[in-house]
Amino acid sequence: MNDTVLDALRPGAVIGIVGGGQLGRMLSIAAANLGFRTHIYCPDADSPAFDVAYQHTVAAYDDYEALLRFVASVDVVTYEFENVPHRAAQVIANERPLFPDAEALATTQDRYTEKSFLRDLGIPLADFARVDSIADLEEAVATLGRPSVLKTRRFGYDGKGQVMIRTETDLTQAFQSLLQQPSVLEAFVPFEREVSVVAARSRGGQFAAFDVTENRHENHVLRTSTVPANLSASASKEALAIARKVADALNYVGVIGVEMFVVKDGGKDRILVNELAPRVHNSGHWTQDCAVTSQFEQHIRAIAGWPLGSPARLGRAEMTNLLGEEALDWRKIAAEPGAHLHLYGKAQVKRGRKMGHVNRLKPD
Amino acid sequence: MNDTVLDALRPGAVIGIVGGGQLGRMLSIAAANLGFRTHIYCPDADSPAFDVAYQHTVAAYDDYEALLRFVASVDVVTYEFENVPHRAAQVIANERPLFPDAEALATTQDRYTEKSFLRDLGIPLADFARVDSIADLEEAVATLGRPSVLKTRRFGYDGKGQVMIRTETDLTQAFQSLLQQPSVLEAFVPFEREVSVVAARSRGGQFAAFDVTENRHENHVLRTSTVPANLSASASKEALAIARKVADALNYVGVIGVEMFVVKDGGKDRILVNELAPRVHNSGHWTQDCAVTSQFEQHIRAIAGWPLGSPARLGRAEMTNLLGEEALDWRKIAAEPGAHLHLYGKAQVKRGRKMGHVNRLKPD
Repeated sequence: MNDTVLDALRPGAVIGIVGGGQLGRMLSIAAANLGFRTHIYCPDADSPAFDVAYQHTVAAYDDYEALLRFVASVDVVTYEFENVPHRAAQVIANERPLFPDAEALATTQDRYTEKSFLRDLGIPLADFARVDSIADLEEAVATLGRPSVLKTRRFGYDGKGQVMIRTETDLTQAFQSLLQQPSVLEAFVPFEREVSVVAARSRGGQFAAFDVTENRHENHVLRTSTVPANLSASASKEALAIARKVADALNYVGVIGVEMFVVKDGGKDRILVNELAPRVHNSGHWTQDCAVTSQFEQHIRAIAGWPLGSPARLGRAEMTNLLGEEALDWRKIAAEPGAHLHLYGKAQVKRGRKMGHVNRLKPD
Repeated sequence: MNDTVLDALRPGAVIGIVGGGQLGRMLSIAAANLGFRTHIYCPDADSPAFDVAYQHTVAAYDDYEALLRFVASVDVVTYEFENVPHRAAQVIANERPLFPDAEALATTQDRYTEKSFLRDLGIPLADFARVDSIADLEEAVATLGRPSVLKTRRFGYDGKGQVMIRTETDLTQAFQSLLQQPSVLEAFVPFEREVSVVAARSRGGQFAAFDVTENRHENHVLRTSTVPANLSASASKEALAIARKVADALNYVGVIGVEMFVVKDGGKDRILVNELAPRVHNSGHWTQDCAVTSQFEQHIRAIAGWPLGSPARLGRAEMTNLLGEEALDWRKIAAEPGAHLHLYGKAQVKRGRKMGHVNRLKPD
């Protein structure tokens, strides 16, 4: 379906969104604002995105009957997370345009495939090796050294599915802690800072990137994003060029998040790509209140075949995630002049769970 | 219920909204953004607000069984239009907090009651007289002169339910054209321009007004709103003071729209109040993209017992309504850099129907 020339989606059309978390919720709101309806597909009956959707389906990703009914009810399909099973993506793409397409999804949902793709494209990234067995791991550690990081190829997020290989680490235990799943060993990167580029590419190949964002993580979970990043002009330019090269090579349609490390190389900032997210990205949430177009509207515009909006920044921005009980501070944040509070409507407060975020805009 | 001391509404609470048009839709989106759920009540099965609501009820306003079920499912109730029948408002207010309250609603949904309230408060407005019969009309015209404007006390909007009394107008015919409904005759105001104040008052009496907005109507329907209004500083101050006085006198909770005429009086701008809208107001739509807090979020904050947000303006703003077929220009507007397009998801394009609006922000 994706190779045919598609008309722009008309207001009133229904956008299918696979995944019902906060990203699906904010996508649904952005879609409604442009006159679209959304149908959210998610196995979890308690999905935050259902609250703001025209329609929703609670079903497993391998319930192909439900999936086909869902697909038949919508005009285009997108997703809010990269772990949509490949078979489900194919079932969808056989019936309706899927953006980003099944190939972009397949490339980015598997760490080894993704890293190989990036390497083949000439994108700078840390050395890595495929690990399918203890023997592979031993060989990889011999090559890449310690410390290094062992990560499962699939389903990892927020530090889950990874283990640090230190001097004292027992390799067998480490591999077993990841349930011996197909994995990748990455050379450790002694980075100065973490940054990301959130960018969009339209069906026609138009590209628009938001300014490079600097990200601070705590316990592997994003804590704050600030813009502009503390980065040299040339490194910033390089980061944006990398995002464009990646999006073009994937023939990508939609918003993509490119996570990067900044390393000091003889006093110069050098960029290494860490990973790709084929979707709107937590580090782009500041765009809701501090950019002309939000990443959510931008994604909807891209997949709808509309022209992209301006990614211009309105000032200095800071986004802070509200994790677990921090969201109980809503009263204080709501009283703070100029703080833009966003809550996801999640009933259960769990330790470390992303419950909301707050955007703060300051004059440039 | 409104006299008891109420706690602030917690995220996750359900806000009931009576009326399912575009205002209800945009309120629902704003509520979701703060972590609330909404339940929309509307007799029209095709209501734009349903698309973004957690729950909706299709039932008549005098279906008290349905109304009670609706009320039982929510934590607080508000409305998006002033023609909620008084009895329905009372049924609601008996069970749950209703904001703005039933008294504010009763005062503002009847032109004669509203004008009497304003006059008693010492607010400047055009002379007016109550008209219940042809004899009343003849007497009123003898006093207020021609031209003057005859308007039904209730259910008028966008120029509907009103007739101009000119030199040649036959009074019997004029009154009959309004189906001899209880009406008000207003002295004609040769205004320079029309402006409005959109403001909010919190449960605790905190007041926050957006800047005075200048409004241009065509065929009695709002065409554009621009901010700041072309108005002297003293007149602007007076306009804001009037809005505050009105809100305080009504012990108002929520966003209120105060429509005003500006007349030249010996070279000086003088303000006359035209009418009140006990709800978010079309002339406040610019706040979505051009103010720190939108009028929709501000209304939700007020009725939820949250602190009001900053009403500060981000620059010069212009809002243009998209009426009828103008909304078919979405492609062109979407391609305009920096134009913020909002579409209401209305399936049927009708001549003059409000289909959406576009906000444009320029540096101050």
